[in-house]
Amino acid sequence: MLDSFIRHPFMSRAGEPACSDRAFVEAMCRVEIALARVQEDAGLLASGTAARIEGQLDVDAFDMDALAADSADGGNVAIPFMKQAKAQLEPALRGDFHRGATSQDIVDTALMLVLKPRLNRCLTLLADCRRDGLALMDRHVDTVMIGRTLMQQAMPITFGAKVAQWLWGLAQAERRLTQTTANGLFVQFGGPVGVHTGLADNGLDLMDTLAAELGLTSPMLPWHTDRQPVLALGDALGAVAVAAEKIALDVALMAQTEIGEVSEPATTGAGGSSSMPHKRNPVGCARIRAAAHQVHAAVGLLHNAGAQPMERGLGEWHAEWAPLVDSVLLVEGALETLQQLLPGMAVYPDRMRYNLALTGGAIFTGLATDLLSKHIDRERAAELVQQATASARESGGGLADALLAQPEVAAVIGDAALRAALDPAAHTGTGAAQVERVRIALSAF
Amino acid sequence: MLDSFIRHPFMSRAGEPACSDRAFVEAMCRVEIALARVQEDAGLLASGTAARIEGQLDVDAFDMDALAADSADGGNVAIPFMKQAKAQLEPALRGDFHRGATSQDIVDTALMLVLKPRLNRCLTLLADCRRDGLALMDRHVDTVMIGRTLMQQAMPITFGAKVAQWLWGLAQAERRLTQTTANGLFVQFGGPVGVHTGLADNGLDLMDTLAAELGLTSPMLPWHTDRQPVLALGDALGAVAVAAEKIALDVALMAQTEIGEVSEPATTGAGGSSSMPHKRNPVGCARIRAAAHQVHAAVGLLHNAGAQPMERGLGEWHAEWAPLVDSVLLVEGALETLQQLLPGMAVYPDRMRYNLALTGGAIFTGLATDLLSKHIDRERAAELVQQATASARESGGGLADALLAQPEVAAVIGDAALRAALDPAAHTGTGAAQVERVRIALSAF
Amino acid sequence: MLDSFIRHPFMSRAGEPACSDRAFVEAMCRVEIALARVQEDAGLLASGTAARIEGQLDVDAFDMDALAADSADGGNVAIPFMKQAKAQLEPALRGDFHRGATSQDIVDTALMLVLKPRLNRCLTLLADCRRDGLALMDRHVDTVMIGRTLMQQAMPITFGAKVAQWLWGLAQAERRLTQTTANGLFVQFGGPVGVHTGLADNGLDLMDTLAAELGLTSPMLPWHTDRQPVLALGDALGAVAVAAEKIALDVALMAQTEIGEVSEPATTGAGGSSSMPHKRNPVGCARIRAAAHQVHAAVGLLHNAGAQPMERGLGEWHAEWAPLVDSVLLVEGALETLQQLLPGMAVYPDRMRYNLALTGGAIFTGLATDLLSKHIDRERAAELVQQATASARESGGGLADALLAQPEVAAVIGDAALRAALDPAAHTGTGAAQVERVRIALSAF
Amino acid sequence: MLDSFIRHPFMSRAGEPACSDRAFVEAMCRVEIALARVQEDAGLLASGTAARIEGQLDVDAFDMDALAADSADGGNVAIPFMKQAKAQLEPALRGDFHRGATSQDIVDTALMLVLKPRLNRCLTLLADCRRDGLALMDRHVDTVMIGRTLMQQAMPITFGAKVAQWLWGLAQAERRLTQTTANGLFVQFGGPVGVHTGLADNGLDLMDTLAAELGLTSPMLPWHTDRQPVLALGDALGAVAVAAEKIALDVALMAQTEIGEVSEPATTGAGGSSSMPHKRNPVGCARIRAAAHQVHAAVGLLHNAGAQPMERGLGEWHAEWAPLVDSVLLVEGALETLQQLLPGMAVYPDRMRYNLALTGGAIFTGLATDLLSKHIDRERAAELVQQATASARESGGGLADALLAQPEVAAVIGDAALRAALDPAAHTGTGAAQVERVRIALSAF
Repeated sequence: MLDSFIRHPFMSRAGEPACSDRAFVEAMCRVEIALARVQEDAGLLASGTAARIEGQLDVDAFDMDALAADSADGGNVAIPFMKQAKAQLEPALRGDFHRGATSQDIVDTALMLVLKPRLNRCLTLLADCRRDGLALMDRHVDTVMIGRTLMQQAMPITFGAKVAQWLWGLAQAERRLTQTTANGLFVQFGGPVGVHTGLADNGLDLMDTLAAELGLTSPMLPWHTDRQPVLALGDALGAVAVAAEKIALDVALMAQTEIGEVSEPATTGAGGSSSMPHKRNPVGCARIRAAAHQVHAAVGLLHNAGAQPMERGLGEWHAEWAPLVDSVLLVEGALETLQQLLPGMAVYPDRMRYNLALTGGAIFTGLATDLLSKHIDRERAAELVQQATASARESGGGLADALLAQPEVAAVIGDAALRAALDPAAHTGTGAAQVERVRIALSAF
Repeated sequence: MLDSFIRHPFMSRAGEPACSDRAFVEAMCRVEIALARVQEDAGLLASGTAARIEGQLDVDAFDMDALAADSADGGNVAIPFMKQAKAQLEPALRGDFHRGATSQDIVDTALMLVLKPRLNRCLTLLADCRRDGLALMDRHVDTVMIGRTLMQQAMPITFGAKVAQWLWGLAQAERRLTQTTANGLFVQFGGPVGVHTGLADNGLDLMDTLAAELGLTSPMLPWHTDRQPVLALGDALGAVAVAAEKIALDVALMAQTEIGEVSEPATTGAGGSSSMPHKRNPVGCARIRAAAHQVHAAVGLLHNAGAQPMERGLGEWHAEWAPLVDSVLLVEGALETLQQLLPGMAVYPDRMRYNLALTGGAIFTGLATDLLSKHIDRERAAELVQQATASARESGGGLADALLAQPEVAAVIGDAALRAALDPAAHTGTGAAQVERVRIALSAF
Repeated sequence: MLDSFIRHPFMSRAGEPACSDRAFVEAMCRVEIALARVQEDAGLLASGTAARIEGQLDVDAFDMDALAADSADGGNVAIPFMKQAKAQLEPALRGDFHRGATSQDIVDTALMLVLKPRLNRCLTLLADCRRDGLALMDRHVDTVMIGRTLMQQAMPITFGAKVAQWLWGLAQAERRLTQTTANGLFVQFGGPVGVHTGLADNGLDLMDTLAAELGLTSPMLPWHTDRQPVLALGDALGAVAVAAEKIALDVALMAQTEIGEVSEPATTGAGGSSSMPHKRNPVGCARIRAAAHQVHAAVGLLHNAGAQPMERGLGEWHAEWAPLVDSVLLVEGALETLQQLLPGMAVYPDRMRYNLALTGGAIFTGLATDLLSKHIDRERAAELVQQATASARESGGGLADALLAQPEVAAVIGDAALRAALDPAAHTGTGAAQVERVRIALSAF
Repeated sequence: MLDSFIRHPFMSRAGEPACSDRAFVEAMCRVEIALARVQEDAGLLASGTAARIEGQLDVDAFDMDALAADSADGGNVAIPFMKQAKAQLEPALRGDFHRGATSQDIVDTALMLVLKPRLNRCLTLLADCRRDGLALMDRHVDTVMIGRTLMQQAMPITFGAKVAQWLWGLAQAERRLTQTTANGLFVQFGGPVGVHTGLADNGLDLMDTLAAELGLTSPMLPWHTDRQPVLALGDALGAVAVAAEKIALDVALMAQTEIGEVSEPATTGAGGSSSMPHKRNPVGCARIRAAAHQVHAAVGLLHNAGAQPMERGLGEWHAEWAPLVDSVLLVEGALETLQQLLPGMAVYPDRMRYNLALTGGAIFTGLATDLLSKHIDRERAAELVQQATASARESGGGLADALLAQPEVAAVIGDAALRAALDPAAHTGTGAAQVERVRIALSAF
């Protein structure tokens, strides 16, 4: 399908091929072999069975086209997979293969196996973002810029404080993904109806040892129609997507031609245009936002399909697969972009200062009025400030100059005092303290 | 990616390969050639230009891997496509290629070209479903069954009336999809900012003739950030998905072992199980429901990404591609299944009659009480009915027998009259008239 | 509940009180009275029955608290409503009340009755928006501004062309809502299992005449679990929400302090701030976007709950009510805001011109290079243009001045010719023609 | 608005009135008073200020209608609230009121205050469900029933094991909600642009002490446009909704007339019907499912609105309020129902046994064949089993009887041995062990 052009551009370039059909067949083989091994260790299969199965299964010998075609008929790939796998085995081994398991045991577990390295990659990328984001934050702890509410200029902040916000948002999401990845990628093993039919004495032990064998977490119970593990994973991915999307949104807004406070590095796909040499499209931001939109929809789907009937879903389970895999790869892709964006972003402090002056000091009207009204009648002070603001905006000069040009003002307040009071850098509140908080918190991550 | 096992099982087996990367490149070539042709016809390009471009562009010569890789960098495939396409052309032609167009013009239009045959296939499948559904409905105009509300037995209906409901639901959705397919698959042509920069005199005419050349509809205006056309298409697909899902839900419920009123044909993937020979899993229903869940999520995404900034989206446009293509192929896949399900469904009228009797006539308690109270005091009538119901449920006989066994009842009402009054077939209301209505309405479709 | 502060601010101020509990009880009374009337007309009830019911039902006599409390127990309000209503009637009439109907008949129909005037109001507001939008568009047919893609300055458009886009988006959605309002607000009447149990000869006729009596459309069949009508309505509302949201997004972006091309009128809630006198928050845009987000979620819910089991939903139907009513009121609220925004919006053509010059003509680099290369070697031309762009951006002058300051340029191209060629107004493509198209199309609406 | 009938039936009857407009105004007053108190403690306000503000603010004196009307204008309720609050204060106090705070500080914090008791109630209800669910599970540790996959009879389980699944699903969600409620209900305090403008030295300390004063958690940073806390809360609520919905789905399916294995208690709203005395509608399940559908949509909305621009959202924040409050009340409502459903549910073990026999032992075909083929040729064994199954289904007797009636079988296997081997109770696998696991795990919760 035309995935290469419509889906993959937003997915991880490393992750996507690692989630191939072949990789999935390999993962299913791993599950079946491990299942034989733990049954052998428990004395349920003859010694050497697992090794013989492992020796006879050949990932490359599977007819992938047949697997794909037959997946539709049976509703899932495990059914044709088992048929082909058994055909590879010597007849005597066939009865020992897939013992006590059901299709969903294989598919759910194989999915976890395939996704686990991708999730670990996401965590590595998040750590990279933390490191590079901290450096960016530290470089700009004193870089004053205007804060914007409802996209209107409001009061000053620092770019460092903004980066601190970004990083802390990302860190909260990282914490959730770390937790899910470490403890929430469960083995699935429950047999036809989730109670290990035929394995009364061994079922739960086999489930536990199978998890250990495969490097997955052992669940309390099989989770064929308890999809809480899938929800927790999907939600955590959603949280990461939102955190990345917030950064992309701010960067794209700040990169607008008329604002020009940052621009994306060329590494995120932003390239020069031959016809408009000074245009640098925030393509990385667009990619992150495209990925995030798709992850949001996946989260909604997982919740809507979360309640599954009786002992096996009737389409709800099947509906989870693509959104879950997509979400992982889209988040990995978004983080790849973000991990290039954060260290490579061009920041223009001069433009930030220029934008701060854009309203002719209107952002400080209240402050200036308060200041003057210590010396002049409040109403008159307000009038003087308003005149000065208007003249400053017209002349392009600052509010301080315009105020000092008024004799009534100059008479009551000194040049230096006024300039100091109206310096945006004097009004960044806890910007530096916030940076310090986040630096400490993230260093301990 | 592992699409073959997680996504494609729910998609159309015909549609999915028809939406290949190659098919998309072919579609983009078609768009560019048609663009040259209409510009040539308008006297904007030298005569013969389009033919020369057509002659020199070779779909098979595109480096698909490079296209895929570079799609991520630029954010869309049109950018690397144009680079490769130009390299195939003699230098003199390059300036005439892609004249006045922007990436989005090519991608949006090529998407419509690729999806159009799939949508027409959906309409064909819907017509098949109508035809086969009508036959099913007609066969069962008199097949009495119990109606169920909140999944509890309520009062009788006919299976024909239920099928009429299914078909009319499907027909309403079909009407929406027909309309969108016929008049809502628009050409996209607006140039860099949607106003045909450099083509003041010709832009809109070129848009109109390009649409005609490609067999698409010409929009009022370019729709780069007016995504109403995409919403209308997505919504219509969503409506079809819901209509199919409703049928799948009812069939799966009726196919429950304990209800057993219908079963899926083997053609929908339902197969015999070696260990449980009488189990016939409603795999087709599961597939339809899995597809529908994914389409619902896609509809939500298209609405959430529908408002796009200024003259070109910043990720919202990119986020549309996969859900839109997926929705088409998932709906086509669901309809393929439905088109096998409707003619092949096994219907068990005996079991329907059996289920009607299951409550020992409790469903007719009210009716029987009304009837008797014409002859006996109402309170006493209710008492007699309650006793009869209990005894009928115990004995497995019918309510009429149990009532007639009570002398007080037999004294006042004749055997035949009572049996007739309590015959479920006498209480199917407008079931037959509804079937007739739908037959007439759908025949005129 | 704290609706007043969290939900109602985004809803219609006229619509919200019109959708009161009392209004709903009144609507349910209307449905019951009309039902008696059509049954009386059909000879099923004694002459005068409907009038007597109408005379004895007193909307003000319903115990609203009891209705609310009992709605939870029974799952819907119709059950306690009927109990209270019957208690108001003389005993002899009680058997004639609600004959052949089921709870869902009353609730679905009453919902349509309550929503119909709100939907008509939406259509009126849409017509107002069309009229005022056309005036805005016409005023700015020649107002040149920069077009922006990926939020970067790209090439010129006109503000009129942008408004044309907005209006045509809105018009497409309006068309869908008009169609649904005119033909898609259906009466619901099917009895306990949707086949008019007990009304074999009259059921469908009664459904048709009841629709006429209530000013609603008669459906082909009862639609208890065929929710296509609800989907069509929800989707159309979603389309309107997206169209309004697109305008709000553009306005908010254009109103950014650094862009300053438009500002909201005070009527949309935008107020002066005492501390920042020049800040005018785009509160109307925020309100529209808040409403749209909620409508998107409602659309998703309606699709996810669209397939309902057997003859009556098991929670899916109940889940529709609030999102459907909310969507109507949120759309009505968004249109109220839009209808103030369009005529009252302040537009700053000077600022648009200023922004056009912001890149020192970088947006015309390609154009200028093409122009010069007719006279000078192309490579040298590109070099000259790049130098001129840099100097223009620095000096704040225009590209034309900077180019003409270079003797090599002045030697080959005349002042007037160059200025004309680089005038943004000369590069607005089909902007005016698009305005003309939309004017004609909307005038015929 | 008609909330009473369309929204509240699914919400908590205790929680909904506790989230009144008045309660919200009271919460906003609490926030402002606490803010004054911590500023006073920090020496920023004169001693006694907070007490004076507390003494002069009168919740009952607020004009609620004006607050509601003005909320729309300003976009949020904090703006008119502050105006009215200041008017209640003596002029000298007005400057000390709301110092350093912004609207969002008040609204976000007041929301947390209003929701906290509701979330604690949810946790109490979850603990009740755990306790009553454990009792239900323990009563049915040996109650054998059929397991169903794709809604078809598959192999035996126990009802205890099914309840264990339900409870562990609920427990995983409870754990998430506990965590969020305990550590994730943050105070909001950041001032106009999130950096405590004017409070450089105190801002973060004030935020921390304000949290302590109000019994909320102190965040790392203000979270005006870092909505991770909202996502975490919404996701956890979504997880609880899914867990409850899963139970409701299973109960409704098991309560189907034809299955009849459980029925809802009358306390959940299920009532007798006069016309169908044996019908007990699963109204509680319908209510839970209706609530869950709405929570799913809310989760989707919160993710879609999660990335908010710059220092303050432009509608995204506003869009969160209703879904967040609704989700809490819908989950509380669903849990109220569940907390009645679990202890009051009627369970019919006889019917479970009856259903186990329904296929005439077809569910044991594989098992019986394995058994016989130890003594008879496998092919012949399969034939005999098939014949026996058919005869058992017809006669309504069991598979054992039918097999033993065949001399070939009776010759090789003893009556008791066969009956034991085909006893469903012998095939419940780890059902009992799973119950034990969950009992231990939940007892330690």
